Amino acid sequence: MTLPRPQIGDTIQSLSTPLPVIDEDRLAGNIKRVQDYMSAHNLAFRPHIKTHKIPALARQQVEAGASGINCQKITEAEVFADAGFEDILITFNILGADKLARLAALNERISGLKVVADSIVTVTGLAAYFAGRKPLTVLVECDTGGGRCGVQTPDEAAALARGIVASKSLIFGGLMTYPKPHTEAAVEHFFIATMAYLAVDGIECPIRSNGGTPSLFSAHLVPTATEHRAGTYIYNDRSMARAGHCSLDDCAMHILATVVSRPTPERAILDAGSKALTSDLLGFSDYGLIVEYPDAVITGLSEEHATVDLSKVEGIRPEIGERVRIIPNHTCVVSNLFDVMTFHRDGIVTRVEDVAARGLVW
Amino acid sequence: MTLPRPQIGDTIQSLSTPLPVIDEDRLAGNIKRVQDYMSAHNLAFRPHIKTHKIPALARQQVEAGASGINCQKITEAEVFADAGFEDILITFNILGADKLARLAALNERISGLKVVADSIVTVTGLAAYFAGRKPLTVLVECDTGGGRCGVQTPDEAAALARGIVASKSLIFGGLMTYPKPHTEAAVEHFFIATMAYLAVDGIECPIRSNGGTPSLFSAHLVPTATEHRAGTYIYNDRSMARAGHCSLDDCAMHILATVVSRPTPERAILDAGSKALTSDLLGFSDYGLIVEYPDAVITGLSEEHATVDLSKVEGIRPEIGERVRIIPNHTCVVSNLFDVMTFHRDGIVTRVEDVAARGLVW
Repeated sequence: MTLPRPQIGDTIQSLSTPLPVIDEDRLAGNIKRVQDYMSAHNLAFRPHIKTHKIPALARQQVEAGASGINCQKITEAEVFADAGFEDILITFNILGADKLARLAALNERISGLKVVADSIVTVTGLAAYFAGRKPLTVLVECDTGGGRCGVQTPDEAAALARGIVASKSLIFGGLMTYPKPHTEAAVEHFFIATMAYLAVDGIECPIRSNGGTPSLFSAHLVPTATEHRAGTYIYNDRSMARAGHCSLDDCAMHILATVVSRPTPERAILDAGSKALTSDLLGFSDYGLIVEYPDAVITGLSEEHATVDLSKVEGIRPEIGERVRIIPNHTCVVSNLFDVMTFHRDGIVTRVEDVAARGLVW
Repeated sequence: MTLPRPQIGDTIQSLSTPLPVIDEDRLAGNIKRVQDYMSAHNLAFRPHIKTHKIPALARQQVEAGASGINCQKITEAEVFADAGFEDILITFNILGADKLARLAALNERISGLKVVADSIVTVTGLAAYFAGRKPLTVLVECDTGGGRCGVQTPDEAAALARGIVASKSLIFGGLMTYPKPHTEAAVEHFFIATMAYLAVDGIECPIRSNGGTPSLFSAHLVPTATEHRAGTYIYNDRSMARAGHCSLDDCAMHILATVVSRPTPERAILDAGSKALTSDLLGFSDYGLIVEYPDAVITGLSEEHATVDLSKVEGIRPEIGERVRIIPNHTCVVSNLFDVMTFHRDGIVTRVEDVAARGLVW
């Protein structure tokens, strides 16, 4: 049993809800706007495919000028390698024999595979497994303030880079960070200081990879960076609009939903719950924006229901059977719930793509 | 590309992370404990399959004594009808020609299909579509305080029931509620009052369906109910343990994860993020319990990373490469992320089941 697949030419109003749909023109506009910015600043751009998990979309990004792609998982990278992509950076520490075997097989298949490491444990594991195989390119992940993975200081970064250089089976590819938003000076300082340490040993640092959709339009404030990575920008979402990185009119993803109940004058229930929207709040206190009723508040989600408070909606309120469009708080996690994604222009379906890397969790 | 499927006999320690696994003995214990309680109280029990979405598990529930199953979506019900289930209650308002067509086809196929309705709009739509077809059984959904769907008063419930009875194409099946926890008196009162109104017109009310894992072990406090519905109890989770409905040792689902980074003495990063655990908090301020390090706190999730605060962990702290088990806050939404579910006894894989109804969102 799979859901019937929407067909090209269908009106999205005829499709069963809940269903995410992507506006082709907004999608194309998002790709162009960001690529134009990067090109204007001579920054290589590496889209993160976690947001869409669809090779055809990565192809659009590369055709627009992107220099390669970013994956978070080996299995994601395998899907995109199958689709012909060669320049893939996996921004994750790869550990364990099971994953190293997959990684080595992938490295044999494509020319531009790169991973990151932030500890000598990860580097030692990679070096041992790749001994006698095609060498693997490894970047050092740096915590420039983001507070997730990454070595803590330029000193540590340089030490780990030296460990990579010392290994015959690994190639030192450079530095990578996923920064805290609006901390460009910290990123720049971390990169410059690390490169200075490495220069003493004559070690080159070809790639300096900065990242994040929140840092997208200030990427030029890190002149040492050679490339920027971002994912969410391709669809955009409510959190990106709130942060000023796009307008609500740049949000390409809507979740179509139907009003299934109006138990009281102030309450509506939609058929999109946490299994369609996810519970990601990203700082909001509600679960998405209803385009047709911006004063309605999605106060809670069950798995298959959204509870909507209509008390602030003046005038006409939604009726049972009415369809609405929801801009999700976070688009990347919505993609991960659906097996196919439906695209449209002015409400007419233009194509339907498999979310090919959905569910590939490692 | 799909993930390699774990094999019977594999040790779960050898499987790639992140991965949810189900302890067979805890699963069987949960099924037995709840069925024994229901049988002792002469209550029919109708498990909600939203938690597992796996026909083989529903078969275990029915073999233990369950009287039928509960689905939330037509497509879920279709999967379970394909697997041979006949007594299926879909606790959702079905609206729209697309869904009515599927519902009618399903009603032709199985003997015991039932749906709910909470408005005259839904009832009118069902009555019109089913005219001239095999009659459909419809229960009235009652809001007894849960604040989601449902008619608001016994008076409204009786009026809607009369509307169903008046339709030649529908059969009035009874009443259904998804109550607020610990409000048994309110549920009992709602059922009794509605039945009293209907008795005046000579309308019988064969099913009175109460529900919810939180209300499970107080189900006997609603003597008018003829059946109880619950889903989460089969796996149980951290939120159920906190509410006292099970112990942590009854939690059958763990998410296996690997420590991929230890950037600082007080921070660990795991490879299980919101695409493995979901962002469901259910009242917690952190994202799951690490069995081996109960004093560690999962303070944040990215899509593929968990950030763990180790500051309260005394003694040995987790090392890079170490594997841990996480009890999720909410098990039902985790099921929905994975295409297969792996079962084990004492760490040895016993079976691997497709999450057959995953992704069937309407």
